[in-house]
Amino acid sequence: MVAPLKVGIAGLGTVGAEVVRLIENQSRALSARSGRGVRVVAVTARSKVKRRGINLRGIAWASNPVALASDPGIDCFVELMGGSGEPALSAIEVALKSGKSVVTANKALIAKHGLRLARSAEKYGGALNFEAAVGAAIPVIKTLREGLTGTAVNRVYGILNGTCNYILTRMEQEGLSFAECLKDAQRLGYAEANPSFDVDGHDTAQKLAILASLAFGTKVAQSAVYVEGISSIAPEDLRAAEELGYRVKLLGVAVRTAKGIEQRVHPTMVPKSSSIAQVMGVTNAVTIDGEGIPPITLVGPGAGGAATASAVVADIADVARGIRALPFGRPVDRLRAIKKAPMERHEGGYYIRLMARDLAGTAATIATRLAEQKISIESIVQRHPDGVDASGMARKAAPVPVILITYATNEDAVHRALQAVQHDKVISGRPQVIRIEKN
Amino acid sequence: MVAPLKVGIAGLGTVGAEVVRLIENQSRALSARSGRGVRVVAVTARSKVKRRGINLRGIAWASNPVALASDPGIDCFVELMGGSGEPALSAIEVALKSGKSVVTANKALIAKHGLRLARSAEKYGGALNFEAAVGAAIPVIKTLREGLTGTAVNRVYGILNGTCNYILTRMEQEGLSFAECLKDAQRLGYAEANPSFDVDGHDTAQKLAILASLAFGTKVAQSAVYVEGISSIAPEDLRAAEELGYRVKLLGVAVRTAKGIEQRVHPTMVPKSSSIAQVMGVTNAVTIDGEGIPPITLVGPGAGGAATASAVVADIADVARGIRALPFGRPVDRLRAIKKAPMERHEGGYYIRLMARDLAGTAATIATRLAEQKISIESIVQRHPDGVDASGMARKAAPVPVILITYATNEDAVHRALQAVQHDKVISGRPQVIRIEKN
Repeated sequence: MVAPLKVGIAGLGTVGAEVVRLIENQSRALSARSGRGVRVVAVTARSKVKRRGINLRGIAWASNPVALASDPGIDCFVELMGGSGEPALSAIEVALKSGKSVVTANKALIAKHGLRLARSAEKYGGALNFEAAVGAAIPVIKTLREGLTGTAVNRVYGILNGTCNYILTRMEQEGLSFAECLKDAQRLGYAEANPSFDVDGHDTAQKLAILASLAFGTKVAQSAVYVEGISSIAPEDLRAAEELGYRVKLLGVAVRTAKGIEQRVHPTMVPKSSSIAQVMGVTNAVTIDGEGIPPITLVGPGAGGAATASAVVADIADVARGIRALPFGRPVDRLRAIKKAPMERHEGGYYIRLMARDLAGTAATIATRLAEQKISIESIVQRHPDGVDASGMARKAAPVPVILITYATNEDAVHRALQAVQHDKVISGRPQVIRIEKN
Repeated sequence: MVAPLKVGIAGLGTVGAEVVRLIENQSRALSARSGRGVRVVAVTARSKVKRRGINLRGIAWASNPVALASDPGIDCFVELMGGSGEPALSAIEVALKSGKSVVTANKALIAKHGLRLARSAEKYGGALNFEAAVGAAIPVIKTLREGLTGTAVNRVYGILNGTCNYILTRMEQEGLSFAECLKDAQRLGYAEANPSFDVDGHDTAQKLAILASLAFGTKVAQSAVYVEGISSIAPEDLRAAEELGYRVKLLGVAVRTAKGIEQRVHPTMVPKSSSIAQVMGVTNAVTIDGEGIPPITLVGPGAGGAATASAVVADIADVARGIRALPFGRPVDRLRAIKKAPMERHEGGYYIRLMARDLAGTAATIATRLAEQKISIESIVQRHPDGVDASGMARKAAPVPVILITYATNEDAVHRALQAVQHDKVISGRPQVIRIEKN
């Protein structure tokens, strides 16, 4: 029997405490599955006295993360402190440089410094595993890194932020506004007091950058991600989507195009029949389109202590088992710089909602302006606001919503057409534009 | 640079030919991802002259599978001939005993002889990978074997046979009979001329037995699987399911209960809102319930040359990379004999459809008989057949369907209650009973 794997854990929040618990409770299964025991031998956290409901007897307490990471008594350093910089970065570097393996759930750090860390892992022979960084217990990193090795990936997209999906689900099912649902999400602990990181799409962008690297063999490039959040989505958009056979989801999409790789995060209309459209509440999902094969979709909990800890322990077990996959699936030197496809040249269908001042005149103007940009209309819905009779007597009084779905066109053409319509002064307010993603 | 992995392939049907093609087309990516080249150096198949649209120049032709498997010039033997016995079994044994790694897509063989082969793999140090055997490109084997190491699995269930799901989808969406849809499935090549293996549930049972072993650390035991096929499902069952908020799917379910492990394959009512209920057509899906975490569902193509080949090549890449996971996730000697939970003691809700001879009398009788077995009724629907007026004038003429959904009870109680009802002679024909699986 090989000696047990000696694990050191930095960070004992919900996830860290759950990892300690899982390793203890699953010790027999873990040793059967990895061929050796797995033991937590040292930990560190901000407070030594906080009650965590876990048994730390016999486990050493390190004075700080870097000290733990350089402790020759551990084989595997588990970083669960979070934060895109120090002390996590130095601690992981130190661990890797001393030949240890590292497991982390830190998406921000991997999105920002993943390549540098992967290089150290390669050079010194340790593993750098981060399954929990994207989609928690959903095995999407492993699937892209090891499971689809034989297939070229053309697109990977998904619901990567549970907070946003919770908000959009409530808005859709109960007809509530974004602000109301956000407040509930905060009350229930799904959203932070400062919700911007989630609802403005940045959390999704970090995760997407990691997935794109694994999918396309490119360097992680969060700065190349186009990001739009969900705060502008109105209940009427969700209602219109429903009627037109779509649902609105905040997607992260990374897709190979003739112009390069598009990485984008934005509210997206997805066909109601798609797997991704069925995903409700805080659940996450990722769809992978491989060359020549139908899509593969992985659905599950994208957050939560137990789900995240489950992924962390699986990563630790891979270390125990001696599996040393390349962190991004390929040697860092073989990862290509991402060729960013400019968003203006994005091609696809669009949902457009306008408030027409005068229905008859506006319809003609819109049709002309779209035609000038060679945009074809798949469907158009004009809504009579409540209280307006069929003869349109009240038309002048209240603007009337006009909803269009276009056939595939490009982003630039849509912008130019809508600028012209605004210039024509036939609509009030700004047009709402939501991209459509076909499955 | 390590020497390339030398691969020998036995079987050049759709999947085999596609594997040859993928390894050639993806050679750069494969070598970047696995740290060494992957080369097909020898093949064998029944016909040497058949046109397959692949380039076999420079590839040796072995006289038979066993000769290929024992060829010292190959490192990895890929078995794509199929069949639960010879020559696949001997060829794989020979390959493993000479220290080679083996990749196979052969579910029948793994379900029947998997343990024996896994023992050889362990003893001689080779890998035995069979991702393609269940759910083709859906990485469900890897997920259970490596991805959920830290979490105890309580239940794994899924749609594992595309033919059955295609038939049930068409029946549901178009109100057609089983026989009509089967005929179409045969015409489209989704079903064999002899469809029994698929529609009677045996294909699902083989796959389920493999998943159960990986999920629970038990010995593969196909003989312990209870099996019921879909041929008795009528369009009216699907219509009733729809109205009651369910869909009918042929599921394979393996679940840990207080009485042991249930392994069962049968038509199943699943809540319309569940991930599994959304899976339509030939698509497969597997849901894994881990202790303390929300379910994880993997959806994708469960068959087809390209999807199967994708999984085979990923398995080959794992071999190239030096990953040697235990075939069933644990050493064979640590796998426990399955403790089979008897089906009579299965607990759950039930859908029951009866044809009542006389509505008033029958309802009273059914209520009494169910109450005698302590079965509570969640809902009851009585249908007036077409042409019968509300006053029930024609009741005596035609039997009236009565549909019941029960709260959780056990299988034995349901059988006893229905036997009593049949004995009472208030119904015509046999009752239809479909188990309900909650998510």
